[in-house]
Amino acid sequence: MKLLVVGSIALDSIETPFGKEVNVLGGSASYFSLAASMFTDVCAVAVVGRDFPEEHLDLFRSKGIALNGVKREHGETFRWEGKYGYDLGDPETLGTHLNVFENFKPVLPEEYRNIEYVFLANIDPELQLSVLNQVKNPKVVACDTMNYWIENKPEALKEVIKRVDILMLNDSETRILAKEPRITHAARTVLELGPKVLIVKRGEYGALMFSKEGIFWAPSYPLEEVIDPTGAGDSFAGGFMGFIAGQDIAEHVGYKTAVVFGSVIASFTVENFSVKRLAQLRRSDVDKRFSAFIQLSRLD
Amino acid sequence: MKLLVVGSIALDSIETPFGKEVNVLGGSASYFSLAASMFTDVCAVAVVGRDFPEEHLDLFRSKGIALNGVKREHGETFRWEGKYGYDLGDPETLGTHLNVFENFKPVLPEEYRNIEYVFLANIDPELQLSVLNQVKNPKVVACDTMNYWIENKPEALKEVIKRVDILMLNDSETRILAKEPRITHAARTVLELGPKVLIVKRGEYGALMFSKEGIFWAPSYPLEEVIDPTGAGDSFAGGFMGFIAGQDIAEHVGYKTAVVFGSVIASFTVENFSVKRLAQLRRSDVDKRFSAFIQLSRLD
Repeated sequence: MKLLVVGSIALDSIETPFGKEVNVLGGSASYFSLAASMFTDVCAVAVVGRDFPEEHLDLFRSKGIALNGVKREHGETFRWEGKYGYDLGDPETLGTHLNVFENFKPVLPEEYRNIEYVFLANIDPELQLSVLNQVKNPKVVACDTMNYWIENKPEALKEVIKRVDILMLNDSETRILAKEPRITHAARTVLELGPKVLIVKRGEYGALMFSKEGIFWAPSYPLEEVIDPTGAGDSFAGGFMGFIAGQDIAEHVGYKTAVVFGSVIASFTVENFSVKRLAQLRRSDVDKRFSAFIQLSRLD
Repeated sequence: MKLLVVGSIALDSIETPFGKEVNVLGGSASYFSLAASMFTDVCAVAVVGRDFPEEHLDLFRSKGIALNGVKREHGETFRWEGKYGYDLGDPETLGTHLNVFENFKPVLPEEYRNIEYVFLANIDPELQLSVLNQVKNPKVVACDTMNYWIENKPEALKEVIKRVDILMLNDSETRILAKEPRITHAARTVLELGPKVLIVKRGEYGALMFSKEGIFWAPSYPLEEVIDPTGAGDSFAGGFMGFIAGQDIAEHVGYKTAVVFGSVIASFTVENFSVKRLAQLRRSDVDKRFSAFIQLSRLD
């Protein structure tokens, strides 16, 4: 089945202990789409500026990502500059220039409104709501968000959360949203806000999936090389949603495998700057690492 | 098979966001012995002072822990005071009073020198070496250490590490010992120092076991209640070593199950202050949670 994503396309300037790259492809919709394209047909909705290199659009096209919903507007592309410390934890934001993204009003092409698998990447919850009002009969809607929206647009965000099936957060977002430090209690509180499934992304420590049926833990393979953590969460979401859309799994009994594929794709993303590793990724690489992930926590 | 442990017995005063307890049973040998006693017969070597409550010794005896090697000396028992912040991460040490532990020279009772499973808890590596020189023909020796010894007695510690089969460290100790931030690279460097197996304890994120055969990840169950993290690492070691001694598993192909049992026992320890939860733990509780741990990361 087709998979719709609404999010950002950006030009990032990233510094990590392993190097620096300027004006490279970034943004939640970029990472998500490239990740999901390993598993299914992706339709992206986003905005870029006049300066956005055509080669990046060619990369998307080469992966079968439909760009009918990606508008090119007057002005410059959204830019983000960040710097990671030695521990590769949360980056310091050195600059955010919204540019054309500031007036982004996602309008779904008519043919996208019947898409049944939908991912609302981390954007203003009011925009997420407007997307929800445009899709006609979705089977599975997932969304991401961040502390900024939890703190600054709590009402709109809660309305979004009430209407989605799957919410993806990290550890700290889960605790802040629930106002509760204990992760299991926090997860329960968040599930009471509406979603059927909460996925807590924990970076190098894997991911936890909470639902009424219980808890599932996907390990994260201890990596040889982590060069740039940017986009790991969006790649996780792309791998997860790509897999369930590709397999048309609307019931969350099938989500465990998708969580592992999400972790697998994220583990590739961080091996190089920007989307470099995703751009060359083959399905056989993904399947090989999926097996390694499964072996990692097998007793026999 | 019998299991020998050499370490500390202490009286701890612990403050966490959930309360404060003064002069409660602590020390690496205490947590280790109680944890391991779920699986096998434990022989402890340690020292206590005149003030050490007989009821604690009775608790050890009730679990079948042999105390022939626990000497009562003139002076006060080793005391440690610590305080945990809201995140229950590394505690702030408010006071350390070595007391009788300052002159601790472990002497193994003659009947202990043939014990084949040996755990050297986190004590001065020179004392760990003296224990190694007293055991006659061990099958499996494991040891723990801490940053203090890595920094202050690196030569003695390296001599210990060269002679043990299993080294247990946490994430940060592994990185510091290897002088390498990437955990897989650090683990490889540490394995080159001699041990067949390195187990990296990661608290709420589980444990990683590295050997020539590859990597194994044991998840840690997301807990409902974490009240006091003290002793989690020693309880992990006790569960791990208790299981392999109880099953007489000298080859590390059988260690994966032991890593999971270690995580299980540690998950109980942190549910209450001091050894309270361990003291009442039944084997049926352990087996039930073992099943839950296994289910946690199963795809089917």
